[in-house]
Amino acid sequence: MSLPYTILILFIFSTSSSYLIPLAHSKIARLGISSKTLKNEPDGSTQKVDESNLKMYYFNQTLDHFTFTPESYMTFQQRYAIDSTHWGGAKANAPILAFLGEESSLDSDLAAIGFLRDNGPRLNALLVYIEHRYYGETMPFGSAEEALKNASTLGYLNAAQALADYAAILLHVKEKYSTNHSPIIVIGGSYGGMLAAWFRLKYPHIALGALASSAPLLYFEDTRPKFGYYYIVTKVFKEASERCYNTIRNSWIEIDRVAGKPNGLSILSKQFKTCAPLNGSFDIKDFLDTIYAEAVQYNRGPNFWVAKVCNAINANPPNRRYNLLDRIFAGVVALVGNRTCYDTKMFAQPTNNNIAWRWQSCSEIVMPVGYDKQDTMFPTAPFNMTSYIDGCKSYHGVTPRPHWITTYFGIQVYMINQISFRNTFKLNLHSSLYLLSLVLIITRLYDPCFTRVEYLIIGYKIFFGIFLEFLDFLCVLLEFFLHHQIVVRIFLGLYHQV
Amino acid sequence: MSLPYTILILFIFSTSSSYLIPLAHSKIARLGISSKTLKNEPDGSTQKVDESNLKMYYFNQTLDHFTFTPESYMTFQQRYAIDSTHWGGAKANAPILAFLGEESSLDSDLAAIGFLRDNGPRLNALLVYIEHRYYGETMPFGSAEEALKNASTLGYLNAAQALADYAAILLHVKEKYSTNHSPIIVIGGSYGGMLAAWFRLKYPHIALGALASSAPLLYFEDTRPKFGYYYIVTKVFKEASERCYNTIRNSWIEIDRVAGKPNGLSILSKQFKTCAPLNGSFDIKDFLDTIYAEAVQYNRGPNFWVAKVCNAINANPPNRRYNLLDRIFAGVVALVGNRTCYDTKMFAQPTNNNIAWRWQSCSEIVMPVGYDKQDTMFPTAPFNMTSYIDGCKSYHGVTPRPHWITTYFGIQVYMINQISFRNTFKLNLHSSLYLLSLVLIITRLYDPCFTRVEYLIIGYKIFFGIFLEFLDFLCVLLEFFLHHQIVVRIFLGLYHQV
Repeated sequence: MSLPYTILILFIFSTSSSYLIPLAHSKIARLGISSKTLKNEPDGSTQKVDESNLKMYYFNQTLDHFTFTPESYMTFQQRYAIDSTHWGGAKANAPILAFLGEESSLDSDLAAIGFLRDNGPRLNALLVYIEHRYYGETMPFGSAEEALKNASTLGYLNAAQALADYAAILLHVKEKYSTNHSPIIVIGGSYGGMLAAWFRLKYPHIALGALASSAPLLYFEDTRPKFGYYYIVTKVFKEASERCYNTIRNSWIEIDRVAGKPNGLSILSKQFKTCAPLNGSFDIKDFLDTIYAEAVQYNRGPNFWVAKVCNAINANPPNRRYNLLDRIFAGVVALVGNRTCYDTKMFAQPTNNNIAWRWQSCSEIVMPVGYDKQDTMFPTAPFNMTSYIDGCKSYHGVTPRPHWITTYFGIQVYMINQISFRNTFKLNLHSSLYLLSLVLIITRLYDPCFTRVEYLIIGYKIFFGIFLEFLDFLCVLLEFFLHHQIVVRIFLGLYHQV
Repeated sequence: MSLPYTILILFIFSTSSSYLIPLAHSKIARLGISSKTLKNEPDGSTQKVDESNLKMYYFNQTLDHFTFTPESYMTFQQRYAIDSTHWGGAKANAPILAFLGEESSLDSDLAAIGFLRDNGPRLNALLVYIEHRYYGETMPFGSAEEALKNASTLGYLNAAQALADYAAILLHVKEKYSTNHSPIIVIGGSYGGMLAAWFRLKYPHIALGALASSAPLLYFEDTRPKFGYYYIVTKVFKEASERCYNTIRNSWIEIDRVAGKPNGLSILSKQFKTCAPLNGSFDIKDFLDTIYAEAVQYNRGPNFWVAKVCNAINANPPNRRYNLLDRIFAGVVALVGNRTCYDTKMFAQPTNNNIAWRWQSCSEIVMPVGYDKQDTMFPTAPFNMTSYIDGCKSYHGVTPRPHWITTYFGIQVYMINQISFRNTFKLNLHSSLYLLSLVLIITRLYDPCFTRVEYLIIGYKIFFGIFLEFLDFLCVLLEFFLHHQIVVRIFLGLYHQV
């Protein structure tokens, strides 16, 4: 398994980026900077943070930036927060770090994101956090109920509109603080990381740089990764414990076998202590699938989630003999916690966030996540665009536009590389590249214990050889040291921080 | 008057770019690559061209690329034309020259544009011409009557949607000709030139370069030029003939004086042989104003229009003595031709094109054209945003968004420079710049007799000194000669052609 140690071109390593909502027979990749369902676990990432420096504001935002119909002029209140405690001021052209919200409320982002708080003071930066339209309190049409009602109201929820929102607010903030020349660095994670990278591409006159963390920018129909989401899930489990991997791998047939018995579903229901009777073996399989995906996606310290699940699955309890499904259930308990019963739909509740994200996945963020042959921990079931589209149509009544993202944002020549910080030569080489494009894409940012950091770097120029690299490097470095010292400092600062 | 011979930063020289439609008390700048009203004059620019190599196509275009409401899925037939006669083919990665239509029908563009035909064969290029939505045959909602009806249907007519149309069609053409790697150069004039430059900024993954001719990219509220449209009109007339300039300058008061007499309006009507009675002196003044603006905007050979007007105004006919208004009228006849009567509304007919462009000017293309103090050939009447907005509101029922264009497309550091081709050093310096940005902006492209060509060049890097220029130049040239020879050839080709 030498894969992650080699350079892979045009392949996105989406380990820590998505979990999934079932949609008819397809799954919808849901992105997120932290697990929405399991975040209250004792070792979850949610921290209690001091928000006394934050001031909340509301911006009168245009509903539709790209048409001029009478309805497009409707406005809504978009929430954003500013921390100006450490800002160096307009005279010093002190920088602005702007967090671009993703499919969460601003409140949960503020609790989860330490990056701006950690780096802001050192850079004398103004910190701005903006909530994404249709999430949290930022609801067009007056209420979540109205906004999320149907395709006519949800239609204005998409990436291009969200980016235009951010552009309007950032220009407004610059005006408010009378600071024309403060460089803005936009920052986001997961879907928010995609937004940050795209913002830099579409609004280079507003953002001087972008930091995109765990952003699966190339997981689309026109850029299907050869090794996808469930390949990574398989790989991580297999590397954690071959025995655990085999137990899970064999469990699917066992579940179907039990379900096929007379009264089989209620046996399964009892085995997994489900809160409600099962409608079919799919319910429990989908639940387990999500457990494993969550464990890998948010596999962070102090107790790594995959290790937790596998330790429980592999354990030999003193008083009784485990059968295969006992072991699987022990894994569930290890991750979800000890409960009187288990809701197999716990990851797919129709919360506002889930409804809004399902819409986005059914309109433009169509990520072809399936179970391919190499995803050996799961029964093979490749992604099927036709059935995905049918599912979306029957759910929302509109047809996805799976090629729109690549038409509008393009397919850049992304490059994935795994580097160690000790490799100075590589560091220099890459620093020239990301300074040039000023889009830095990092995976595994929120995994402080991970010793190797995977970098995804946008670089058209990477193929043109060392000589051009060196010239570029000189040009860019000179240019920036002469004229954008602050930006260089920010980027070097962020770089060393990671 | 040393102005045009010096370098002017952040100032757009819009000589050949706009004429105006009256809107209540404000004027709407109408752009266009050739005069729509006077094009059938004997020395007009319309040529009879051989179109036998052109094939017409219709593309099933999405009404609204930026929302996913049920209505957004409506489609319309967008017309485009292809000339593949000289194309070098997919194997050779032969280039594609794409003309991005502006506020005209494709038919009139095809008649007016020689640039692609002239340069295509030499470059073995595929020639693509695309009609702009809401112009010519490219009408959403089934007919011009429906499409131009009101704000609810006109709302989808704007630059961002038009650019997305072009993106979809160009990707479709590439697929159709199975030519993934053919570089695309987008080309446009006037408003179409703005679209070409913006297309390169927003869709760099589709267009490798843009050629923007006479594109007033910085004539917006946030980037008001210090010397505007009527300054140029004044300057050109004054340089053509001081006497002519003075005659026109003094005529406005004379018109008002005559109009103030008993029966004054019918005296004026007789003097100017108007087809209909005048409602006020404004009618005739607005008509004359447009005559002078047209003369400067389309001041081309073989008989330059300004010279024609001024020769007539200055003439001393053998048989009678001219008074001031006789002279002014002689100028009208010289440009418009000998007619039994003159329609003072001839430049502002409610044609489909005019209705659509008025909408665009009232929604996002808000160009603050007024009569400032230095525009001495005209009575001073600076642009007034409030009355402009009021005019638009009462006409279309919607409020313009005058800051949207600069929010979405940004204010680049444009630079205007007037260079002679004999100045080789400057040529090299600038070639590095435009290769870098790959946006070449040219004014006066359609003026073959003009000995000095004004260049507007986008160049963030121009301020960073010769050394960086030289390094940049080396980098870019090396890179492109190694990997984009074709693009370099195209750009060098276009450059030498101008």
